[in-house]
Amino acid sequence: MNKIEHVGIAVKNLGKSVPLYELLLNASCYKTEIVASEQVNTAFFKTGENKIELLEATSDDSSIARFLERKGEGIHHIAFAVDNILEEMERLKANGFTLLNDTPKKGADNKMVCFVHPKDANGVLIELCQEIKWV
Amino acid sequence: MNKIEHVGIAVKNLGKSVPLYELLLNASCYKTEIVASEQVNTAFFKTGENKIELLEATSDDSSIARFLERKGEGIHHIAFAVDNILEEMERLKANGFTLLNDTPKKGADNKMVCFVHPKDANGVLIELCQEIKWV
Repeated sequence: MNKIEHVGIAVKNLGKSVPLYELLLNASCYKTEIVASEQVNTAFFKTGENKIELLEATSDDSSIARFLERKGEGIHHIAFAVDNILEEMERLKANGFTLLNDTPKKGADNKMVCFVHPKDANGVLIELCQEIKWV
Repeated sequence: MNKIEHVGIAVKNLGKSVPLYELLLNASCYKTEIVASEQVNTAFFKTGENKIELLEATSDDSSIARFLERKGEGIHHIAFAVDNILEEMERLKANGFTLLNDTPKKGADNKMVCFVHPKDANGVLIELCQEIKWV
């Protein structure tokens, strides 16, 4: 895997957390984006080569809402950039890792993504992501 | 703040988790280091410009042991590289963030570090770190 593309943080209220993280990171939020398929509202910040993504649930039965209920606010996942998501998914499957989706799906910030089950990675939810290139 | 220097992951057993993360990240562990002051054993992996740090408690009353007891295995902190840790600590204090140490302390992997209280950052433990330069 390549660099950490972003770290995702589950928050209750994006309106409160965006100005807080702008102060903390000393960086402006450069994008907010609703990902309807995941029932989540996101906000992005650049920190050098990497990004921080804040995640707010837009529905009570979304995975972020369930995470907040179970664990409270905090770090939700680490996303790694990959060159070829299909090859990386094959490599992980061949090594016994459980993928949470069989085919890459559209994520936030112009990415195709796939998640690895936390049970296979010491409780850490790992996201693979590959930038979509429009030709 | 600059790039994500590393993400720290609390694990119960480094001996089991190092080969697992080598497979997952497709990267060799390049260093293990005991940080006696933190009662922790660490293992590092490079992912592009960033690192993953696995953390295993070496004592039952260390902060990693308490984290594992309270929350189980999983992501423990995000560390950001900073150019000048003293200036960054001052900036954060002036903006109302609570620092967990008043002066930078020696961390793993040749760094001076300071932690920001998770209560001020939506439950996220943030580490600032500046590489030590020997002149």
